[in-house]
Amino acid sequence: MQQRKISKAVISRLPRYYRYLGELLEQGVERISSKELSVRMKVTASQIRQDLNNFGGFGQQGYGYNVKYLYSEIAKILGLDRQHSIIIIGAGNLGQAIANYANFERRGFIIKGMFDVNPRLVGLVVRGIEILSIDQMEDFIRENKIQIAALTIPKTKAPDVADCLVKAGIKAIWNFAHTDLVVPEDVVVENVHLSESLMRLSYRMCSKQEKEAVTVGKQQRK
Amino acid sequence: MQQRKISKAVISRLPRYYRYLGELLEQGVERISSKELSVRMKVTASQIRQDLNNFGGFGQQGYGYNVKYLYSEIAKILGLDRQHSIIIIGAGNLGQAIANYANFERRGFIIKGMFDVNPRLVGLVVRGIEILSIDQMEDFIRENKIQIAALTIPKTKAPDVADCLVKAGIKAIWNFAHTDLVVPEDVVVENVHLSESLMRLSYRMCSKQEKEAVTVGKQQRK
Repeated sequence: MQQRKISKAVISRLPRYYRYLGELLEQGVERISSKELSVRMKVTASQIRQDLNNFGGFGQQGYGYNVKYLYSEIAKILGLDRQHSIIIIGAGNLGQAIANYANFERRGFIIKGMFDVNPRLVGLVVRGIEILSIDQMEDFIRENKIQIAALTIPKTKAPDVADCLVKAGIKAIWNFAHTDLVVPEDVVVENVHLSESLMRLSYRMCSKQEKEAVTVGKQQRK
Repeated sequence: MQQRKISKAVISRLPRYYRYLGELLEQGVERISSKELSVRMKVTASQIRQDLNNFGGFGQQGYGYNVKYLYSEIAKILGLDRQHSIIIIGAGNLGQAIANYANFERRGFIIKGMFDVNPRLVGLVVRGIEILSIDQMEDFIRENKIQIAALTIPKTKAPDVADCLVKAGIKAIWNFAHTDLVVPEDVVVENVHLSESLMRLSYRMCSKQEKEAVTVGKQQRK
């Protein structure tokens, strides 16, 4: 119950802690100080302590953090201690890339179905999952009590499909369509807007180059 | 030169402004007030004014924003007023999904090459782009003065490939590999960690459901 008031910023950092702790576990590291962890993760030790204090402070002074315990606690917080059934709407390259990513399954996200409008894709099998027609989507969600849907379809069709998903009982939409979805209170949407990510990359590259050009210019004038 | 001290948070919101302004343009809207824009974008009008003030304030009191002007100014800031050449390293589903996404090209991001280690993929053509062997990557970058690389390969191979990319002159890495890359000062990395995005979705869904369970429990006890 402690996680109620945790800030978005902290939550958004938790998966990264989880990844680093998983790597430490694989390397056989049993405990780690906030300082060592801060060197690996390139954030300050004080931020690590503050972030992890939100969850009751799993560390002990002089001992550091028990890696396995912290890993499993963060897993619980993130909802990774149980299985989630997912369907993918849109079986193009992106949908197939998600279906093929075995790591999701290791984390408890089990892909149960894929759906597409394209008759040439319907009937194909991706990693053991048959692509079904989108007409079958709503029944499938109800029958299999699916809660999470990945939406990898063009933005023009996304709002209508999202409405159908919600009507059928979906509670979380992983939205790759380049548009903002409007959903009821009890449904969450996590956006992956690739174009926007690429624009941020472009911005950062351009502004860094401008800054360097200015610095070089100044040096040459000296 | 004004964009020097703009906060990361503002920058990260710019692509979204750009998207909404683009949609307004398509709808033939010539000008818009911060209030109308705030209703569409579901952020406060005051945040819109604050954000856009960072760029010298394109709005005029009583008139609102000139959509076309604001759109093109934001494009300039994001570096979208020029063309960028991109290569994709890793021609699996995700690499192909990126290559097939025509929208990137419309924004000035031109995919010039794709590379893979898999001999079964080398020689295939995706949207007019031939997949080359990764051995040809460094020469290709130098000959074609490529600055941006999308990295869609497994995390185990990503650090070594990133080193090669940087050595050959890449200045921006769009990193889909689930690891943090270490690069020199003059290179930018923009991460798209899909697993982490999925975990955030899972967290938000689970914590919403717990909260609702608590509320229902309280109501039942009444």
